Amino acid sequence: MRIALCGGTGDIGEGLALRWAYHTNHDVVVGSRDAERAETKAREYETELDSRAVETTIEGASNADAADGADVVVLAVPAYHLADTIEAISDGLEGVLVSPAVGMRGDDAGLHYNPPGAGSVTALAANAAPEGVPVVGAFHNLAAGRLANLDADLDWDTVVVGDDPDAKELVSRLAADIDGLRPLDGGPLANASEVESLTALLINVARYNDDLHDLGVKFW
Amino acid sequence: MRIALCGGTGDIGEGLALRWAYHTNHDVVVGSRDAERAETKAREYETELDSRAVETTIEGASNADAADGADVVVLAVPAYHLADTIEAISDGLEGVLVSPAVGMRGDDAGLHYNPPGAGSVTALAANAAPEGVPVVGAFHNLAAGRLANLDADLDWDTVVVGDDPDAKELVSRLAADIDGLRPLDGGPLANASEVESLTALLINVARYNDDLHDLGVKFW
Repeated sequence: MRIALCGGTGDIGEGLALRWAYHTNHDVVVGSRDAERAETKAREYETELDSRAVETTIEGASNADAADGADVVVLAVPAYHLADTIEAISDGLEGVLVSPAVGMRGDDAGLHYNPPGAGSVTALAANAAPEGVPVVGAFHNLAAGRLANLDADLDWDTVVVGDDPDAKELVSRLAADIDGLRPLDGGPLANASEVESLTALLINVARYNDDLHDLGVKFW
Repeated sequence: MRIALCGGTGDIGEGLALRWAYHTNHDVVVGSRDAERAETKAREYETELDSRAVETTIEGASNADAADGADVVVLAVPAYHLADTIEAISDGLEGVLVSPAVGMRGDDAGLHYNPPGAGSVTALAANAAPEGVPVVGAFHNLAAGRLANLDADLDWDTVVVGDDPDAKELVSRLAADIDGLRPLDGGPLANASEVESLTALLINVARYNDDLHDLGVKFW
């Protein structure tokens, strides 16, 4: 399977790219607004994997070229770049779109969930997606630092929401392909806001508990 | 310590009453708008504990009588009864108020966090509390069924929020007194909404995953 990570040069994109390249045989393509930057990061990821005796080729490309022909396109970009990014990749887009972004605002106390008018960032992605392209929300609640550290065990859950059962199933399988990540069904896309809100809580809990950092969550 | 559970006859109140009576030597008082009903439930809880060889006395009383002289008063009532309940117990109230309630609304997809105008139910409690009475948010994300089943292991986290450090410390210790419950500092009361929102997510995840029910959460 071909997985494109738009915004795969930073934050959550780096972790997902490394994990899929490390744990699976899927083709991973790192996308960026700046194709050269994507190329550079792809080489960095290859070097990191090579140091762990994983020989693999990671492609780097513009977001549009990365998404072209991909089975799954992860929108690993900040929420405020989401609509722009979808517009940039729309031509010929055939893969499932995955939205891991969260809208937050900060104050002295901590971070707070700050959904867009659509109700959630995932819903915003669905509204911006071309007709017929399914949108799935997933990977919202993963601490980027630990995700990108291949020495770190995860043992985390990720809640998957969406209205297209086949697309959800596909994304859930991709999640399960990552060692230590368990996909859980969160129901329809209308349930995305509670999933996204959890990210702010994770960051607040990490801030106020000295012995906890880079937090994810396990439901049981 | 004397712990009053206003609304201790149902839902989360029953579980907290049983757990504190089972795992600690604290005096547990079950409160209800109907003192007779509180008495009846207190006897039921004693019978349940007696069947596990725990001989203890659980008091039943009106919410006001339960709160009177209590070190900690847990407002285990639905969010829409919160202000009424605080008003009913305000006279002579000296203990720390604890708010575990959550405001939610349902649609076809699932449950959604539905905070009051104050921003969170915990903030609503703080606004309604008498001057000088500290309010702490805690115990929001515990599945009532498993909490009340003394055969069930918990191994859950509960996030504690509030603006009074001593009150938070007290409530955190009471949480830690329950086997398998780990209190985590969630920061100031302004961070309560993200804690409360998690409850809706837990219920949605339990609804859409056949093998999961009565969910709590572990941060790591």
